[in-house]
Amino acid sequence: MLKKFINKPEDVVNEMIEGYLVAHKDVVRKLDSSRVLVRKEAPIEGKVGIVTGGGSGHKPAFIGYIGENLLDAVAVGDIFASPSAKQIYDAIKAVDSGRGVLCVLGNYSGDVMNFDMAVEMARDEGIKVEQVIINDDVGSAPRENRENRRGVAGEVIVWKAVGAKAAKGASLEEVKEIAQRVNDNTRSMGVAHSPCAVPSKMYGGEPTFTLGEMEMEIGVGHHGEPGVKRMPIKTADEVTKMLVEPVLEDLPFRKGDRVSVLINGLGSTSLLEMYIIYRKLYQILKGREITIAISFIGEFFTSLEMGGFSITLTRLDKELESLLKSPAKSPLFHYC
Amino acid sequence: MLKKFINKPEDVVNEMIEGYLVAHKDVVRKLDSSRVLVRKEAPIEGKVGIVTGGGSGHKPAFIGYIGENLLDAVAVGDIFASPSAKQIYDAIKAVDSGRGVLCVLGNYSGDVMNFDMAVEMARDEGIKVEQVIINDDVGSAPRENRENRRGVAGEVIVWKAVGAKAAKGASLEEVKEIAQRVNDNTRSMGVAHSPCAVPSKMYGGEPTFTLGEMEMEIGVGHHGEPGVKRMPIKTADEVTKMLVEPVLEDLPFRKGDRVSVLINGLGSTSLLEMYIIYRKLYQILKGREITIAISFIGEFFTSLEMGGFSITLTRLDKELESLLKSPAKSPLFHYC
Repeated sequence: MLKKFINKPEDVVNEMIEGYLVAHKDVVRKLDSSRVLVRKEAPIEGKVGIVTGGGSGHKPAFIGYIGENLLDAVAVGDIFASPSAKQIYDAIKAVDSGRGVLCVLGNYSGDVMNFDMAVEMARDEGIKVEQVIINDDVGSAPRENRENRRGVAGEVIVWKAVGAKAAKGASLEEVKEIAQRVNDNTRSMGVAHSPCAVPSKMYGGEPTFTLGEMEMEIGVGHHGEPGVKRMPIKTADEVTKMLVEPVLEDLPFRKGDRVSVLINGLGSTSLLEMYIIYRKLYQILKGREITIAISFIGEFFTSLEMGGFSITLTRLDKELESLLKSPAKSPLFHYC
Repeated sequence: MLKKFINKPEDVVNEMIEGYLVAHKDVVRKLDSSRVLVRKEAPIEGKVGIVTGGGSGHKPAFIGYIGENLLDAVAVGDIFASPSAKQIYDAIKAVDSGRGVLCVLGNYSGDVMNFDMAVEMARDEGIKVEQVIINDDVGSAPRENRENRRGVAGEVIVWKAVGAKAAKGASLEEVKEIAQRVNDNTRSMGVAHSPCAVPSKMYGGEPTFTLGEMEMEIGVGHHGEPGVKRMPIKTADEVTKMLVEPVLEDLPFRKGDRVSVLINGLGSTSLLEMYIIYRKLYQILKGREITIAISFIGEFFTSLEMGGFSITLTRLDKELESLLKSPAKSPLFHYC
């Protein structure tokens, strides 16, 4: 069993939300009738609303990104479980100012099904809604089945870009196009050496998977979904190479490209390790004459206490680079 | 053994620094001759320099706080080991603009000895230097031996306040007084259920301590120093109460006080858990009519991948509250 500081396992999400709301009441509020968190000022006149949602246990994702030039609402699921269609519908409704709402979601069957239903419900009421499904995880399906790939930390890059675009007063179609463009130019790959646990008992839970004492798994999903390959753990330099090469080849990224780099810790991998990884990643990209225009290093989309990390690259054009470099501010994400 | 993504264990600190420098070259630079990181613009005309230093493995501390309205230089030690007197002296020299330098350090014998020597060396050269030793950890010695207490996450609050004060052009004496005042009004207490490991092998290291399968330790230091008591793990609500009550009684904090709250994850404790803890802490303080004026929730001073957290309270007056609420910006800390 993995130990945790929790109360009753069935209360973790509601208690977490309660704590979040008292800590950040200047920025977010909860809808009265639904487990949905929204920006305090939403709906914002003249702005397309940005909605996402998904299971809990990924903090700072998802609710940590509700804020200025980022998200307007999040439908909050149980640990690693989709929110309901009703919650997503409530989120859409709460942030529509009349200019429409963009839903951004990861490619997980439960999320996709519930977002589809919610979008239909909202459209039936005359709300303009579009959705973009993120599928950046190279490790989850081969290139020819790209539509089956999961969405992982690349979602953060999409939120950052669409948040900035929407804040400029862009139309729903324009904001949707940005989400699609970021997704089409983003690829990720992860690795883990230690599992996380869904809270299931008074003081913790059972690991979601098990690995040998000196094993790691390449391509593992951020709920512990099986990856591409298990093998003995390698050095930071070797692992970085093993993750970034398939990412580079998949798009493919080319000499002369400008990219955004995201090194995302999954929970218990230290920043010390992440900077050692960044060092190697920088060397590899430099060797290929790919320029890092912006980098994000830290915990942006975790899997509770999983030991591991992912690398996400996004190929930038001028507009995407400018959107990613725009200021943004929420309780758990700052760029200024 | 705890697995890690590293290369040779003896290279971790230098490789981490290399990664940090390429990632944040707009903000920090390294001295040519010494393992010291400084603000790119240092020394800053008319400003008292702020120097700290300590062992590595606590990221975002220490180097993550070099930036605007925060630290000017950090002498970087090996994992959990003090930097040398020479490094600290180099740091002091590099950031002195003529208005003097304040050193802020945690109360660890190696750090204290080396800072003492460095301060003497700098004074011999005519640099005005003062130092303030932080000792906020209630769990490390009884109240009557307060001078023996270790410094833990409270250091972050001191850096934030003195960084803001120095940026306003205050004198060395004024900046020192703020550091002392924050320290005198700050108390912390930690708990851990899982150890961390100093990198000692190719792929990880041995845990710094061991606990039973369902055990936790109250008062544990952030290098794994023995705490006050080992016991079976308790619920988040019970643990929060066990940490905050000795903190409240020690100063003591009183009805009507305004405080800063810092919940600091030690490495593998999730933000989900930290917000559950914040919820209870908020209830306890509200019940005592103590007002939370500002709160920091996340990883601010870790112990590699240790599983646990600490609670830090600081009693505020008008000036301290205003300093803590001033904008600050560094690669790993933002307040705006």
